[in-house]
Amino acid sequence: MSKNPLKEIGEFGLIEQIQTWFGETVGDLEAIGDDCTVIPRGNQSMELITTDLLIEGTHFLFEKIKPEDLGYKSLAVNLSDIAAMGGRPKSVWVSIGLTNRADLRWLELFFQSMHQLAHEHNVRLMGGDTTKSQQHMVINIMVQGEATPDQVKYRSSARPGDVVFVTAPLGDSGGGLQLLLDDRKDQAGHNEKKLIRSHNRPYPFVNEGIWLGNQTAVHALIDLSDGISSDAGHVANRSGVIIDIELADLPISNALIEASTKHGWDAVNLASSAGEDYVLLGTCDPSSWQSMKKSYSETFHSDMYAVGHVRDRTKNQNRAGSKTAGLTTGGQLQFLKDGKPVDYESHGFDHFRSQTGKA
Amino acid sequence: MSKNPLKEIGEFGLIEQIQTWFGETVGDLEAIGDDCTVIPRGNQSMELITTDLLIEGTHFLFEKIKPEDLGYKSLAVNLSDIAAMGGRPKSVWVSIGLTNRADLRWLELFFQSMHQLAHEHNVRLMGGDTTKSQQHMVINIMVQGEATPDQVKYRSSARPGDVVFVTAPLGDSGGGLQLLLDDRKDQAGHNEKKLIRSHNRPYPFVNEGIWLGNQTAVHALIDLSDGISSDAGHVANRSGVIIDIELADLPISNALIEASTKHGWDAVNLASSAGEDYVLLGTCDPSSWQSMKKSYSETFHSDMYAVGHVRDRTKNQNRAGSKTAGLTTGGQLQFLKDGKPVDYESHGFDHFRSQTGKA
Repeated sequence: MSKNPLKEIGEFGLIEQIQTWFGETVGDLEAIGDDCTVIPRGNQSMELITTDLLIEGTHFLFEKIKPEDLGYKSLAVNLSDIAAMGGRPKSVWVSIGLTNRADLRWLELFFQSMHQLAHEHNVRLMGGDTTKSQQHMVINIMVQGEATPDQVKYRSSARPGDVVFVTAPLGDSGGGLQLLLDDRKDQAGHNEKKLIRSHNRPYPFVNEGIWLGNQTAVHALIDLSDGISSDAGHVANRSGVIIDIELADLPISNALIEASTKHGWDAVNLASSAGEDYVLLGTCDPSSWQSMKKSYSETFHSDMYAVGHVRDRTKNQNRAGSKTAGLTTGGQLQFLKDGKPVDYESHGFDHFRSQTGKA
Repeated sequence: MSKNPLKEIGEFGLIEQIQTWFGETVGDLEAIGDDCTVIPRGNQSMELITTDLLIEGTHFLFEKIKPEDLGYKSLAVNLSDIAAMGGRPKSVWVSIGLTNRADLRWLELFFQSMHQLAHEHNVRLMGGDTTKSQQHMVINIMVQGEATPDQVKYRSSARPGDVVFVTAPLGDSGGGLQLLLDDRKDQAGHNEKKLIRSHNRPYPFVNEGIWLGNQTAVHALIDLSDGISSDAGHVANRSGVIIDIELADLPISNALIEASTKHGWDAVNLASSAGEDYVLLGTCDPSSWQSMKKSYSETFHSDMYAVGHVRDRTKNQNRAGSKTAGLTTGGQLQFLKDGKPVDYESHGFDHFRSQTGKA
């Protein structure tokens, strides 16, 4: 058996262990278990900070991803973390460990692509670190954002009765990854290219996140980085509620349906378990759902989709906590098929147990 | 010739290049060229942010450094960056990419040691990222600190006439590194152990930095991470001044003198060119120097040392800028031997051109 602590106790186990080792000098739990650290700045401003460490061979394959895609995606996934708190991204720090394989042209494409996305959202490059790496390229991105206390949305705020919604169809990124792993990129048709693009250049719901932050009817918010089975589970756990997700209600794009038919994939399986869509998932007061959905549609010319409901866990027999014990108040995700609970095996992407393909 | 951009154009060349690629979305230059990014928060508070990416094989050798030393040093060098701005460190984010060689016990020692140093300075762990790395361990540390606008000290603020001072003897860390590289650790005597400890556990001048931030007589401040020949050069360049450093005035510890005699090292060479002492170097109004030195000594039971002076570059023939063109307004470091300029070859540590030993 490997000694790797990530295999032994998992990511959340390790995070808890680190908190124990740090003892009294750890910030509050909210800060560590959510998408961002939240730091109050005076009465009317909250600072949001998120950081992601991306390592070649674990999160991306140097030969498989274009520098312009990697530059875009590295920033996009961090902007998504700010969006998932209802905040506005402001500043970025980029640290990079360079191997001999990344030449100046590679870096130019990487940074210019990142710059385009940053510019689109008025995010400024504020610093970072550049150094050499012997074997594998390393990228560390830190994004700082801001919100008012009312705008900040936590994973832990879902309330019984809430509608659970997502901001886009699910599974496209998973389909794109499958095409890349199967080396089908070169013969990809129009819709398959869309899936690959979803994987390589996930759209960060930045303006949508700010908009959702301003809706008092929205209670909890998270971005789907590891897949809905994993991430909606975090919301359920942290909020101490049951979240019922109806599989038939998961939105699936025409592109994914077409590719699934062609390649014999289970589209619902991809939509419910594949990661890296970076779509926002939220919970919302049911009385406001229809009007909010309409208003969102008018604002963004794009739909939100109801995929389930939140209910009180005291009405359910199963009160067992999960492996994320210290970060949870209990709670659970339940998939439904035509209204009936199903045992749906979780395939939520866990980057500690897989090797490649995640950025 | 290697394609590595760090070899082609160097660290500062690359940083400038990245700024060009980012165009108008780069924060101000001050933010990128100093020890920390400085962000105004309202009228009376400045936020300071520093981040360091440490990669096994480039910055440390896994088999050569104890986890407790690596945990300590990773944080210490970032606390030193906050101190070098005259600020107070508040929060830390730790991201770690783990190989199979780091087991739970290794991590426990790493984080507990980091915690002790954090606790000492009331710095809180606020978040980070944990992930897997295939080949080399990766550590990214981000430290956030604060200061009032008056307390923040920049590299660019040295003034002609200023006394140049350092807060401790120089070269101990370089001596310790030499002992480690020569595999002399096991037979090291008391003083040699002190040198090795200086290298593995550099003392971050946190309280001293806060104190210096409060002295209006202190104009520029920096920490000596790459060695005085390199770092005092940054102050000269950014301030557009000449800095004269008298080699005979460089403070050298008894431990380094003893080890240099024993091993045939040139102690002055180590003190003037070796990196990683993380001693603070500042410039100070000459009329306040004696009283400040006395007050510092009474406060910290430790000495400051005058090592040189700042003069106007217009009085010097040589007005050439350095390779760090875009980050400089011109200026230069000049070593003196008994008051006479000497051509002293710069050996300031450049982690892009060397392989190992730096954390």
